[in-house]
Amino acid sequence: MIKVHRVDGKKTISLSKINPTDVQKMSKEEAVMHTTALHTEIAELQALLYASGEKSLLIVLQGMDTSGKDGVIRGLSNALNNTGCVVSSFKVPTEEERGHDFLWRIHPCAPQLGQISIFNRSHYEDVVVVRVHKIATEKVWRGRYDRICDFERLLTSNNTIILKFFLHITKDQQKRRLMAREADPTKSWKLSVGDWQERDLWNDYQVAYEDAINKTSTPEAPWTIVPANDKWFRDLVIAQTVAEALRPFHKKWLSDLTLRGEAAKKAIAEYRAGKTSKETAS
Amino acid sequence: MIKVHRVDGKKTISLSKINPTDVQKMSKEEAVMHTTALHTEIAELQALLYASGEKSLLIVLQGMDTSGKDGVIRGLSNALNNTGCVVSSFKVPTEEERGHDFLWRIHPCAPQLGQISIFNRSHYEDVVVVRVHKIATEKVWRGRYDRICDFERLLTSNNTIILKFFLHITKDQQKRRLMAREADPTKSWKLSVGDWQERDLWNDYQVAYEDAINKTSTPEAPWTIVPANDKWFRDLVIAQTVAEALRPFHKKWLSDLTLRGEAAKKAIAEYRAGKTSKETAS
Repeated sequence: MIKVHRVDGKKTISLSKINPTDVQKMSKEEAVMHTTALHTEIAELQALLYASGEKSLLIVLQGMDTSGKDGVIRGLSNALNNTGCVVSSFKVPTEEERGHDFLWRIHPCAPQLGQISIFNRSHYEDVVVVRVHKIATEKVWRGRYDRICDFERLLTSNNTIILKFFLHITKDQQKRRLMAREADPTKSWKLSVGDWQERDLWNDYQVAYEDAINKTSTPEAPWTIVPANDKWFRDLVIAQTVAEALRPFHKKWLSDLTLRGEAAKKAIAEYRAGKTSKETAS
Repeated sequence: MIKVHRVDGKKTISLSKINPTDVQKMSKEEAVMHTTALHTEIAELQALLYASGEKSLLIVLQGMDTSGKDGVIRGLSNALNNTGCVVSSFKVPTEEERGHDFLWRIHPCAPQLGQISIFNRSHYEDVVVVRVHKIATEKVWRGRYDRICDFERLLTSNNTIILKFFLHITKDQQKRRLMAREADPTKSWKLSVGDWQERDLWNDYQVAYEDAINKTSTPEAPWTIVPANDKWFRDLVIAQTVAEALRPFHKKWLSDLTLRGEAAKKAIAEYRAGKTSKETAS
């Protein structure tokens, strides 16, 4: 198993000190093998999560453009049953959404017990892009750190497991990926001048992300910084983190479900026996 | 103007010390006259709230069965334009709602800027009926006081004015109203044995309400205890409290809107002048 950059509020992190290219001497082949095994385990864990209905899981994905949010979701799709897993993408807010507090459009997408929600971008846009582009005053976006912690505490106190991932890439890697998209006719339609304009604000975004991560990391809703220049390493970090978050409940969920199964079988047996004795009597 | 029992967290209240029959020596005729005048003022204030879109208003109604929540809403309907005012009633939660945190079904009903939301019952059921009927453990419902304050802070920090009303009646008055409903064929269909069973838990409810009110009163989201044995006095307290909450903004909203109107008229005049000079030139 690899070492993961988990941020849980005990100490602050500096993004510039975490290397997006560090793959811990692992080869691609080795990583893919581990990821595949972890996906099999996650599939089993999801089935137990779903059946027991005791907890829910919220996965938040954030990162610069081209950092691989869509790729992570495709990767997890290999593991996760769509029954019980919903992906929500948060784009530029509508007028109705802007007429409410910034969590108003987020809250309805929180996972139901037994289910998994994946956020492709999230409420963190409201302390990142909003800050970088000065869409709100500093007083407003700074106040949101506490509102976010309050909101996530509401969810965790209702048995939601929260995992937040920052997909960490280098500025050079972003350039390579943007150029590759330009060269690919199936992807170039996604591009705009805006992508390059956003890139000019790279440092502002890194500062905004670093602050957001440091201000909203808690043991119950930790951030994981994912070195994401190599997609296969990124997917391994995600798979391992998800598996580790659910694994501690495996035994309990399985034994609870076994007990429920025994109770159901007993009730059925009694029903059958009663029916038989009635038939005998009549 | 009458004296209102406003609870804003500076000191705690005891429900048994507030008299549900105290009408402050006001006659019914006098009260109705004042209420009518206040309704006219509220209608004006709502129009400005709506047009300026700077703030929103949330009115929360709680109280024992027959305390007059529906009556208050009927009364306010005389003042409020339905465009920009939505009533949400919260009944026993569905299975999907129970699969989420207790605020999940509430949050989508929070008012948009410019609008008014009225909650007929609310998230306070989750610290009152849930406590009285032991639907959740004490640890769970006690934790909810903080979650409620966090949630209301989220709304007030987004310019929502919150007014919470506890409609305070005597146990005798409830009996009279239940008997009156039984005698009225247009109302008796609403009754059930459950109404009388709930009545047996009167004292438990009073304790649960008193705690909820004391734990969640803040200057930004105050509770008002409404002596509600007399419907005409109850309606006056509500009307006065709503008018007083909006009145401080009257001047600013009106002047903002006047400026917007002047700007619009100027732009139209310029457009017309340009068109005229083009017509002259051609």
